[in-house]
Amino acid sequence: MIEPRTLKGFRDHLPAQALAREKILDIARRVYRSYGFAPIDTPALEYLEILTGKGSEETDKQLYRFTDHGGREVGMRFDLTVPFARFCAQHIADLGTPFKRYHMATVWRGENTQRGRYREFMQCDFDTIGTMSAVADLEMVLVVHDLLAAIGLERFTVRVNDRRVLSGVLERLGLTDRATDVLRSLDKLGKASADAVAAEMQQHGVDAQACQTLLGMAQLKGDAATVLADLEPLVSGSASGEAGLTALRSLIDGVRKAGVADGRVVIDPSIARGLDYYTGIVLESFLDELPGLGSICSGGRYDNLAGLYTKQPLPGVGASLGLDRLLAGLEELGRLDHVETPADVFLAYFDEKHLADYLKVAAGLRQAGIAVEFFPEPKKLGQQLKVAAKKGFPVALIIGSDEFAAGTAQLKHLATQQSTTIEWGDDTAALAAAVRQALGPSAGR
Amino acid sequence: MIEPRTLKGFRDHLPAQALAREKILDIARRVYRSYGFAPIDTPALEYLEILTGKGSEETDKQLYRFTDHGGREVGMRFDLTVPFARFCAQHIADLGTPFKRYHMATVWRGENTQRGRYREFMQCDFDTIGTMSAVADLEMVLVVHDLLAAIGLERFTVRVNDRRVLSGVLERLGLTDRATDVLRSLDKLGKASADAVAAEMQQHGVDAQACQTLLGMAQLKGDAATVLADLEPLVSGSASGEAGLTALRSLIDGVRKAGVADGRVVIDPSIARGLDYYTGIVLESFLDELPGLGSICSGGRYDNLAGLYTKQPLPGVGASLGLDRLLAGLEELGRLDHVETPADVFLAYFDEKHLADYLKVAAGLRQAGIAVEFFPEPKKLGQQLKVAAKKGFPVALIIGSDEFAAGTAQLKHLATQQSTTIEWGDDTAALAAAVRQALGPSAGR
Repeated sequence: MIEPRTLKGFRDHLPAQALAREKILDIARRVYRSYGFAPIDTPALEYLEILTGKGSEETDKQLYRFTDHGGREVGMRFDLTVPFARFCAQHIADLGTPFKRYHMATVWRGENTQRGRYREFMQCDFDTIGTMSAVADLEMVLVVHDLLAAIGLERFTVRVNDRRVLSGVLERLGLTDRATDVLRSLDKLGKASADAVAAEMQQHGVDAQACQTLLGMAQLKGDAATVLADLEPLVSGSASGEAGLTALRSLIDGVRKAGVADGRVVIDPSIARGLDYYTGIVLESFLDELPGLGSICSGGRYDNLAGLYTKQPLPGVGASLGLDRLLAGLEELGRLDHVETPADVFLAYFDEKHLADYLKVAAGLRQAGIAVEFFPEPKKLGQQLKVAAKKGFPVALIIGSDEFAAGTAQLKHLATQQSTTIEWGDDTAALAAAVRQALGPSAGR
Repeated sequence: MIEPRTLKGFRDHLPAQALAREKILDIARRVYRSYGFAPIDTPALEYLEILTGKGSEETDKQLYRFTDHGGREVGMRFDLTVPFARFCAQHIADLGTPFKRYHMATVWRGENTQRGRYREFMQCDFDTIGTMSAVADLEMVLVVHDLLAAIGLERFTVRVNDRRVLSGVLERLGLTDRATDVLRSLDKLGKASADAVAAEMQQHGVDAQACQTLLGMAQLKGDAATVLADLEPLVSGSASGEAGLTALRSLIDGVRKAGVADGRVVIDPSIARGLDYYTGIVLESFLDELPGLGSICSGGRYDNLAGLYTKQPLPGVGASLGLDRLLAGLEELGRLDHVETPADVFLAYFDEKHLADYLKVAAGLRQAGIAVEFFPEPKKLGQQLKVAAKKGFPVALIIGSDEFAAGTAQLKHLATQQSTTIEWGDDTAALAAAVRQALGPSAGR
């Protein structure tokens, strides 16, 4: 016998987890599509040279790589950005710009599992490529907002900044040459105290007054107008900083005009996100009740996606939903329902001579868009209802000889154990209508 | 510069292809769910010992295998059945039986690409595990029928047989010990002539009369009642053969009672499918217009799924949709529409000072469930409409200063170049209703 086991850092998704994941993926797909982002897919395996040297040294080390049957050096994708860059270099002439795509797919990293990380996870990216338009930046923010709202989160905040504002402030302080070190220190704010961050910056040669300015900037709070006003003197005179501020101002204006509720999108001058990649708007988003969870959807604008593969400059803007982090957050908030079935109704089977009638009932309900699990064995009713309750069915439909004769059915709500009688004669459409009404808006989930 | 290219045997899916795939996957998901099949997922990578020696010698040779960072011998899954067997051995005690799952995921095989095969493709399996119930067999047939009907195929045939009928006929002819050779020869019928198949069987020691009987059986045609009557004398006296015939009879009866149109499910005594695995009902399905394409959805009943990993016997029944073969068939039939966008409406942007109004319009349409691509750059209208037409948008919404002032909009049907005027005042809900009516049932696809 071979021991049935999964590899370290890998896991099976059982129905309850798989259903929760599919639900989020389905919402993301719907929201991305509602803005005209189109799906693409790329292979799990790429030539090794496509993948190495594109992320950090760490991602290179974590890469699953091997020699294939044809002697080619290959690797499994560790993110969706690098394959997308290769994809754009190859296909953008056919596809045309601006090009809007989403890509929801599995990636692999041989990470240290002691940090609770998995070596296989999904990314859900969307990007607009080949345009500098501020409308694309605005749409990124709106998509993230609509996505988090569609997931049913009542309390979340999308935090935006512009990398040029940070550059402008550093320029004004004469710290442009130390930008990387300073931003890396500032990024620790929240995890480390303001004093510790200041001490670290001073080690990089930042004087006390500049430290105060930077810490003050990073901690600016309040409504967008206030933060914008507070930032103005800090960037004044820096062309880059002023451009960033103007972009932020018009972004906030656009968000409001698109009908987003006040306070959902805020300016947070401490957000830098990656030190080299992003060049304009940057975005992170948080569950208000779980600030320690980290950003669940992040992104920004970059100057050139595919410079390693093509001479055509491809600026773009996009973000990525952290599916596993979001699911962990929903779990912590008690927002996952742990249902093991995608069906709406459990149809008990306890009278073999009525098989044809059960089949007719099940077919009628399905025709009306109601998903039905028909238990395949005519076991005792109690045993069947136990299965239905364990799987999380809201209702079971019970029809025996007497009910078939009388043209009725018992609809049992499994949580309350309450039953109601449905009169349906021989009309499965009437039965379906009654079941749909009893299920309420959950039917056809 | 690194040359942007995909590995031999691998391919990118551009929006038009990815949209067609997502549409089929979405239909399969909906149909599988409508019968209560729940999703699961398993890792792309498994311990090598889980994967080797489970398929054929060929699949072993085609396996992508390597040593991971921790020195473990691992392989990429080559199908979804072997991982499912491992999964069941590991989790079935928690999940309980009968267990119904679907699994739609990518698999990898280092196949010879000269036959037009890809090394990465998707499988879409569904199975009911842990029950011998004939209702589960019937449901498999109904799911396949509903799936092909839901895809919008008007002409398809689901062909069923029972392996026990074949065994019974062979038993009656005294050929049980040569079953594998005989079935392998019979399986060539259709590709090879009846004479050639007969000659091959005679080489295996089958006498001329038995050849006639077998070829006659394999070519039985007509309605189910006729075929069943013709099979009866061929299996009479064989317990296994008679059991198979009874199962086929009640299957056909159940299919009819579930409301499936006559002729959609037929008995085809030539179908054997795999020589060792299946033990009861077997099924293949074909597009009537493309018989040479082969079966697009196949499956059957087996005695024991996970015998290599657990002592618990797990009989089951299930089938798998051949996504790539189906898409090839739809392409050949001219049934793929090659649309590059998932959105319903293209909203042209040609008056920058109305940005806020465009945002309001787009948000209003999306709220009404209409997907909108808003062009991010205020380019010339003609240029924008060319983009919209290339991507396959059915309609473009054109609103300039005059239209905003008058509370109207031009809805242009891109195929006919006809425009209609919508009166909407400042009421985006009214605009959405008019657009939805113009789009017809395609809206929100």
